[in-house]
Amino acid sequence: MYGLIGKMKAVPGQRDALVSILLEGVSGMPGCLSYIVAQDPADPDAIWVTEAWDSQASHKASLSLPSVKDAIARGRPLIAAFDQHVETVPVGGHGILVPG
Amino acid sequence: MYGLIGKMKAVPGQRDALVSILLEGVSGMPGCLSYIVAQDPADPDAIWVTEAWDSQASHKASLSLPSVKDAIARGRPLIAAFDQHVETVPVGGHGILVPG
Repeated sequence: MYGLIGKMKAVPGQRDALVSILLEGVSGMPGCLSYIVAQDPADPDAIWVTEAWDSQASHKASLSLPSVKDAIARGRPLIAAFDQHVETVPVGGHGILVPG
Repeated sequence: MYGLIGKMKAVPGQRDALVSILLEGVSGMPGCLSYIVAQDPADPDAIWVTEAWDSQASHKASLSLPSVKDAIARGRPLIAAFDQHVETVPVGGHGILVPG
């Protein structure tokens, strides 16, 4: 499996708008086992996105989906910075559909 | 909702053992919406755990569950350090059961 943990900073005042864009279409991405968007309570502009995919290829393919490309285009102007970007290898857990 | 993102370092050579302890009983914790244990491919000792709960109270209550207390007792000696501990407020996503 392939995972990502990322922290981004929204343009001040735009976090809610960016979160809603990030949440659009998250259930229509083949191979996506988990995709959670969270606020950072310690920073009014910060957003954490934690992801788990059945493979890195599935994640890469998702970036070509029309819905995702559209969300990226609309979301990008609302992103001030990418603070943290970690690749992981999910092993398992709850709320994750471990591929067959 | 309440979320946690944590990075810990296993005692060298003990990551697999620690991961399996962390994964035991993860599906029996009331209020747990997502709990994913992942390896860090860039560090052979590092583990990432990303969690989402319906409330902070549910998370706190989970620490009193016999299964969790037992896992903590067995896992603690295998943990060399806690590198990162972030509290978040999950908003939504895929693979997360947004409470009613």
